[in-house]
Amino acid sequence: MKTNNNILIAQGGGPTNVINQSLAGIIINEKKMGSKIFGSLNGVNGIINNRFLGLNKISNSDLKIIQNTPGAALGSTRDKPDQNYCIEIFKRLQVKHIKKFYYIGGNDSSDSLKIISNFAKSKSYGLQCIHVPKTIDNDLVLNDHTPGFGSAAKYVAQLFSGINYDVKSLPGVYVGIVMGRHAGFLTAASSLLKKNDSDGPHRIFIPECPISLDEFLNSIKETFSKYGRCIVAVSEGIKDKSNKLFTEKIKKQNEFDDHGNIQLSGSGILGDYLVEQIKRKLKILRVRADTLGYPQRCFLGSASEVDQKEAFEIGLRSVKYSYKHPDSFSVGIKERKVFSKSYKVQYIQNSLIDIAGKTKHMDSSFYNKEKFRVTKTFTNYCLPLIGKNIPDTKSII
Amino acid sequence: MKTNNNILIAQGGGPTNVINQSLAGIIINEKKMGSKIFGSLNGVNGIINNRFLGLNKISNSDLKIIQNTPGAALGSTRDKPDQNYCIEIFKRLQVKHIKKFYYIGGNDSSDSLKIISNFAKSKSYGLQCIHVPKTIDNDLVLNDHTPGFGSAAKYVAQLFSGINYDVKSLPGVYVGIVMGRHAGFLTAASSLLKKNDSDGPHRIFIPECPISLDEFLNSIKETFSKYGRCIVAVSEGIKDKSNKLFTEKIKKQNEFDDHGNIQLSGSGILGDYLVEQIKRKLKILRVRADTLGYPQRCFLGSASEVDQKEAFEIGLRSVKYSYKHPDSFSVGIKERKVFSKSYKVQYIQNSLIDIAGKTKHMDSSFYNKEKFRVTKTFTNYCLPLIGKNIPDTKSII
Repeated sequence: MKTNNNILIAQGGGPTNVINQSLAGIIINEKKMGSKIFGSLNGVNGIINNRFLGLNKISNSDLKIIQNTPGAALGSTRDKPDQNYCIEIFKRLQVKHIKKFYYIGGNDSSDSLKIISNFAKSKSYGLQCIHVPKTIDNDLVLNDHTPGFGSAAKYVAQLFSGINYDVKSLPGVYVGIVMGRHAGFLTAASSLLKKNDSDGPHRIFIPECPISLDEFLNSIKETFSKYGRCIVAVSEGIKDKSNKLFTEKIKKQNEFDDHGNIQLSGSGILGDYLVEQIKRKLKILRVRADTLGYPQRCFLGSASEVDQKEAFEIGLRSVKYSYKHPDSFSVGIKERKVFSKSYKVQYIQNSLIDIAGKTKHMDSSFYNKEKFRVTKTFTNYCLPLIGKNIPDTKSII
Repeated sequence: MKTNNNILIAQGGGPTNVINQSLAGIIINEKKMGSKIFGSLNGVNGIINNRFLGLNKISNSDLKIIQNTPGAALGSTRDKPDQNYCIEIFKRLQVKHIKKFYYIGGNDSSDSLKIISNFAKSKSYGLQCIHVPKTIDNDLVLNDHTPGFGSAAKYVAQLFSGINYDVKSLPGVYVGIVMGRHAGFLTAASSLLKKNDSDGPHRIFIPECPISLDEFLNSIKETFSKYGRCIVAVSEGIKDKSNKLFTEKIKKQNEFDDHGNIQLSGSGILGDYLVEQIKRKLKILRVRADTLGYPQRCFLGSASEVDQKEAFEIGLRSVKYSYKHPDSFSVGIKERKVFSKSYKVQYIQNSLIDIAGKTKHMDSSFYNKEKFRVTKTFTNYCLPLIGKNIPDTKSII
């Protein structure tokens, strides 16, 4: 058995619409290098539980379909390895003679990878750890944006465009709760298909900008008086002036994962709470809330073609770079200097330590804190990422 | 002023992704007949409030974009006319010399139209009333299916296909609450893109089949034991064994419209209630619910090309029939005798009185009441309606 070319791939954190594009990219280029490719099921959890799968046997035609399928094809996990977990990981990796580990994931997965990489160094076990980014939250530092975000942003933009016409038909107040616990990028994307000021979403509330309930209600009142309707996009991670999550304040029981993240999605509680406040305090009759939920990251058929291409390419590049550069690293997309609608992607390598567990927030040039709206700079930044396969729309009234 | 060719179009009830296709169809064919075309804003409400719009001036290129835009381009309403309302309507129609009224809507709008038509007859006011169907609920009698349903069904099917792969990645229980107060067609559509038995949704609960909470929980328990995950599609209109709505039981305050319909959408309460029951009684840790909400009827970009074409054609036909047949009627799609994947649409005229205010339910051959699943007959019936522009998917594990 040739053992110097055994590599492992896993996927961690919340899946995206294009996470399998990166998986396919890695498989294709590692196959070319003659590697023996293992996948561990459900991220690092599959390593300690000895749940491996040989990936060389997947046919090219199957891989083509898999890469366009939402969700993590190898399964995912929220596990965060501690010392004992790392000991178990290395037992398994040694048995399989694995010298290179690609972990496709977001902040938390890059943090897990840093822990594993540090452990390997401390034990002088030669393991190259490669972080391949994905997150719909778009909150990885040193990256212009992250694979997965463009497709989620497209879904949110399409959804709010449809809602704009729906609420125009039957006027009232509509509150859409968007994913994003720390960063407002995805909530901000709700405005990308607006055609003019009277189109919704009229107001956008993001985690980076704490607000009081009064500010929230007043901004709705103002819009409703002006247009007879109001659409707001609210991040699930919005905080009050004392920096406390709205959701934490109103929820009786909270659920946390290994990384200490509170569960925000999969419940309609924040939307229902805001609806009640609007009805009661503004005396508006027709008030509705939708919590956009999991479809934001997995809706079949709304992937951005730009995002698909980049996620695939980032998989291919991670392999190329790994052969040029023997250390651990995080592959990424270089930050633009100027935000304009003519955007061109550039791939880079970052040091794992500079990425791991850190959170990027919305640039201050992206958001107007007085008007609770996104700026033209944000639209220029974000619009190219959602691609062009979106129908045009028009109003009569 | 030539007054014998003045016609009125309005849209009523919940908008759909293709309601403007029918509007465009009517405008195009009435333009050919040389008619002066008025639209009333927000359905019948715009008639009594004298809010009319001349529609002849819309350019063909604008109309092309408008017909592909979700929502009701003329606005909609939930108003149900009574005697006094009808008096006001006819005052306005007489001023405008309107002799023909197209109302694009569902059960409630056809009911409104019947009331108006009966009033006109009783006053010997010659008004031809034409009901042009739309409803995502698909619950119009004497129709194989209704424009609007195919697109909503496509959205729900795509969403649950994505959710299937998402929950495969991070296993648990997922509850998706689907629109449909009386009929389970849309909830049943959640299963259209299933590839095999282990794919979600594993169980489907519809208004036509009352269930106890125990039956609901037991079916989830059984699936979860078998696959380690369970995805369920639940209609917002599910009822308990005493035929009482689950939502009515758990909601403190209920909101009703003019037609006596309780508000079910725009709140996460049913999903949150079911999550709590599953967590508490089945001791499963990861349980999430999404209430699919308004995007089901208005998500931009997920319209079914079959639905778009039929909704447009039904608009064109309603005009053709109206010139052949001077009485009031409801245009429709003829019921198929055999449900197979090779489906061909046939348009018909129904009498308004046979359609108005009646509700069609899921055929007993469509649903397995023991297993809480849809049948192959349903899939054969429904699959052709969502079109073919849907990406293929594949699992590794």
